[in-house]
Amino acid sequence: MVETLQCRRILTSLLALYILFSINVQTVMAGTQFYDWEVRYAYKSPDCYKKLGMTINGESPGPTIYAQQGDTVVVKLTNSMTTENVAVHWHGIRQHETPWYDGTEGVTQCAIMPGDTFNYTFVVDRSGTYLYHAHYGLQITAGLYGFIIVSVPNGFSEPFVYDYDGSIILKDLYHSSTYEQATNLSFKANSWIGEPQSLLINGRGRFNCSASEVNSGVCNATNPECSPYFLTVVPEKTYRLRIGSLTSLSALSFEIEDHNMTVVEADGSFVEPFVTKNLYINSGETYSVLVKADQNSSRNYWITTNVVSREPSTPTGLAIFNYNPNYHYKFPPTEPTTGPLWNDTDSQLDQSQAIKAHHDFVQAPPPISDRVIVLLNTQNLINGYPHWSANNRSLTFDQNPPPDTYDIENYDIYDVSENKNAISSNAIYRIGFNTTVDIILQNANTMKANHSETHPWHMHGHEFWILGYGSGKFDKVHDTKSYNFINPIMRNTVPLYPYGWTALRFRADNPGVWLFHCHIEFHFYMGMGIVFEAGVEKVGTLPTSIMGCGKTKDMIRP
Amino acid sequence: MVETLQCRRILTSLLALYILFSINVQTVMAGTQFYDWEVRYAYKSPDCYKKLGMTINGESPGPTIYAQQGDTVVVKLTNSMTTENVAVHWHGIRQHETPWYDGTEGVTQCAIMPGDTFNYTFVVDRSGTYLYHAHYGLQITAGLYGFIIVSVPNGFSEPFVYDYDGSIILKDLYHSSTYEQATNLSFKANSWIGEPQSLLINGRGRFNCSASEVNSGVCNATNPECSPYFLTVVPEKTYRLRIGSLTSLSALSFEIEDHNMTVVEADGSFVEPFVTKNLYINSGETYSVLVKADQNSSRNYWITTNVVSREPSTPTGLAIFNYNPNYHYKFPPTEPTTGPLWNDTDSQLDQSQAIKAHHDFVQAPPPISDRVIVLLNTQNLINGYPHWSANNRSLTFDQNPPPDTYDIENYDIYDVSENKNAISSNAIYRIGFNTTVDIILQNANTMKANHSETHPWHMHGHEFWILGYGSGKFDKVHDTKSYNFINPIMRNTVPLYPYGWTALRFRADNPGVWLFHCHIEFHFYMGMGIVFEAGVEKVGTLPTSIMGCGKTKDMIRP
Repeated sequence: MVETLQCRRILTSLLALYILFSINVQTVMAGTQFYDWEVRYAYKSPDCYKKLGMTINGESPGPTIYAQQGDTVVVKLTNSMTTENVAVHWHGIRQHETPWYDGTEGVTQCAIMPGDTFNYTFVVDRSGTYLYHAHYGLQITAGLYGFIIVSVPNGFSEPFVYDYDGSIILKDLYHSSTYEQATNLSFKANSWIGEPQSLLINGRGRFNCSASEVNSGVCNATNPECSPYFLTVVPEKTYRLRIGSLTSLSALSFEIEDHNMTVVEADGSFVEPFVTKNLYINSGETYSVLVKADQNSSRNYWITTNVVSREPSTPTGLAIFNYNPNYHYKFPPTEPTTGPLWNDTDSQLDQSQAIKAHHDFVQAPPPISDRVIVLLNTQNLINGYPHWSANNRSLTFDQNPPPDTYDIENYDIYDVSENKNAISSNAIYRIGFNTTVDIILQNANTMKANHSETHPWHMHGHEFWILGYGSGKFDKVHDTKSYNFINPIMRNTVPLYPYGWTALRFRADNPGVWLFHCHIEFHFYMGMGIVFEAGVEKVGTLPTSIMGCGKTKDMIRP
Repeated sequence: MVETLQCRRILTSLLALYILFSINVQTVMAGTQFYDWEVRYAYKSPDCYKKLGMTINGESPGPTIYAQQGDTVVVKLTNSMTTENVAVHWHGIRQHETPWYDGTEGVTQCAIMPGDTFNYTFVVDRSGTYLYHAHYGLQITAGLYGFIIVSVPNGFSEPFVYDYDGSIILKDLYHSSTYEQATNLSFKANSWIGEPQSLLINGRGRFNCSASEVNSGVCNATNPECSPYFLTVVPEKTYRLRIGSLTSLSALSFEIEDHNMTVVEADGSFVEPFVTKNLYINSGETYSVLVKADQNSSRNYWITTNVVSREPSTPTGLAIFNYNPNYHYKFPPTEPTTGPLWNDTDSQLDQSQAIKAHHDFVQAPPPISDRVIVLLNTQNLINGYPHWSANNRSLTFDQNPPPDTYDIENYDIYDVSENKNAISSNAIYRIGFNTTVDIILQNANTMKANHSETHPWHMHGHEFWILGYGSGKFDKVHDTKSYNFINPIMRNTVPLYPYGWTALRFRADNPGVWLFHCHIEFHFYMGMGIVFEAGVEKVGTLPTSIMGCGKTKDMIRP
């Protein structure tokens, strides 16, 4: 009852705030979009192989959340699993004034226990293409993910035109259970879980079943659940395709056979348009591309996605770009492309650098920063267990402050990582409210010779300006000179390439406690992330619903 | 800190109380037995088939808890699973003055969340053979179970003698995961999970792997984890064998080839000794039997367990009764027995009726009861989902009081159950403190024609007197005349046989909230249980540790 009242009070005050805001800025009333979700297990055959997955109302990916800029979204989430908790993060939503609804278990809330219902209530204050996903254990891998699509306010025009809107969410799929994966990742003898079995486009893929799997009924290639996704297009029309990735491990390439794509949005920011045949996309990133159905319309075309950055052993993910009125499952007459070379990092870096803010929407970054945090990305053994770390701190929860930098002078980023001084730590950075912070992500060799991995880092509660990328060890004298202060894109996710560095700047203007972490779920699970707080004294009274279980939700703080 | 202090205070007061008690009664100081447990997943091959299981410190069954009557047991349990909670029940321990440590999730505590540590602290106030197991979801099935063995106080003599003590815990094993099982049990089209793949004796069984399972590395008959358990005996010595069952579904028979067993203890009560070749044992029951190694010692003998009460499709569980100095893995020259006829209910009933209190340890029941609760056991559909119910209430949590009886006049217990008025309900019975209550368990037909199942009911916080068993519908005029008031055994678990009734009496003298439920884990999961409270006003301040998670443990009640 206390909880309900408190929720209602928060909701009311939020609504009041944003209604005022809307009246001033848009002169339209913001609405409330209500979603009623039940998280439960279900047997699914996304790639024809039957396995138990985590679903929202029986579906994986879950339902797309549609809202308009300024709307309040209410997701009433009921956990109908047996013994397993859940927490859901609204990826790219800044949670101004509602940091407690960021959905990051252990950071902003206690996970939602079986049988409990939790109301996530937040304002989507910026149009664009966003994601949601579980933020607990390996529950993205288990299947809990989907899109948030926020339309522009009435009367506002985006800097591009299209006839129709479509969306494609990408995922890699494992046949093992997430409990098994978590166990494997926690072994001393790191029984690495290997490459995914399938790539899914809008939840559909195709696994080449063995005879015994077919005979045992586990794999059924005729199951309609694994028929490929098709996007039906009308000749000569232009499509805005929203593309998001929530892979557990894989960086991907994405293409539509014989069709160019014009990139126009990245993580909710408008992009100075550029044309590409192939879009690279990391876990946690979203893009909008424009595609014109301008090819021979008597046939269909392949939509393909392939693994990059790691030597792939996962087959190409397939869908069909279906020209109306061809039969939607009429396979294209061609062989699907296997995509660009997996280890052509230069092409990936080139594309990352090509992503600039649209000239009409440039938001200039503050010219100087108050603090620079350099984060060395390494793989380590801690007490014999494999971990990933930033500055030799693998994220866990204790009371020791983490370091702002590493031994820049002496660390050889091309050496096989030893890092015997790595520890587990809470890695909480206390940052001055409204200060400007630079983060330099510095990559290095892993525990394997001549091996460095791509890490897409995602920031909660904020966007950051991407000031630059480079190869080798970051040099604060020379490399800062190459920073882009003219038209840097603002994003929430950015890749760090092998042996390279990535520089970003953000303003700590959102009171709360926020995660910044590698979005590869396995890497984050193994500690690759930091927590920062800014302005927590401004957060005010926390809703009781974010902590406690059962009747303890009615308890008050002493 | 608050929690720690409170815990310490409770612990101190408990210790003080029981030390006083011990001084008065036993004139010896009670000790404290401390156990440090980490609950985590591990790959195990209990029957040669590799699967992920839930373990305590890497083991399933978990470590045996040894204590002496009057001791305080402290189990410091850390949940090292990823996203799954846990709660552990101390089966047969009455939890006088510590009802909050009964370990029943949803009734006496919030489940222990991942990363949390919970201290179970309780006094074992009576010698005997007890069990512990998870009391949440299907976590017994997942592997979380073990023995509690409480020795008699110094200077006290049990009414039987033996040379050595041994213990055997029985379990049925499924190869599917408990998440899959829970999903199957929750389907509208009840995709029943079927019979177990193996029977385990002390955690070891043997599954007949198929070629593809062997080839894929999932099944390995040479894995030492699945070599059979052996009990080495010295010729002519007498062994006390403690036998407990924590099966998920199966009622079992148990025998030692060519050896008789003398039953001397049941659920902690001394039994008027009787000899049997075969011991029937239900989930939740414990026995002690005496076995003399008096056969031809040049060979070994089979220890076998078989499914009864359900038409078995699970192979015989095997272990070796190894006469020293024969090689312990020397297989007996005989074929293992397949046990008694699975549907010979009369023999099971006969054995149940043979279990009487030892003549030196009879505790007379109160001659009359204050209240009679009749519980009709049925299988139902509720909103199309399969459930098990008592008086058409399938256990869940709401505010409606459940009924004390069913439509005795008109209900035909031999008919296929329709029970269209069945509902989900909290089924909480409020019982006057220190009153005497009779419970009549009444069996009936299930949703299948000519089919009624055995249900072993287990009571928390109490023992009850077993007043009688019978066939058909209980008749309060005639059947009460057959009650045994002379030497009824006191137990915590009692079977209800197909189409029969079982009558028991207990004194509600333990303040708290307690479960009484069918101990078949799948049946309880599907609602077959009730909750009763008595004297809750005497319980006092609850420790904060039983509710809440993370920092909410420090909260206080408004």
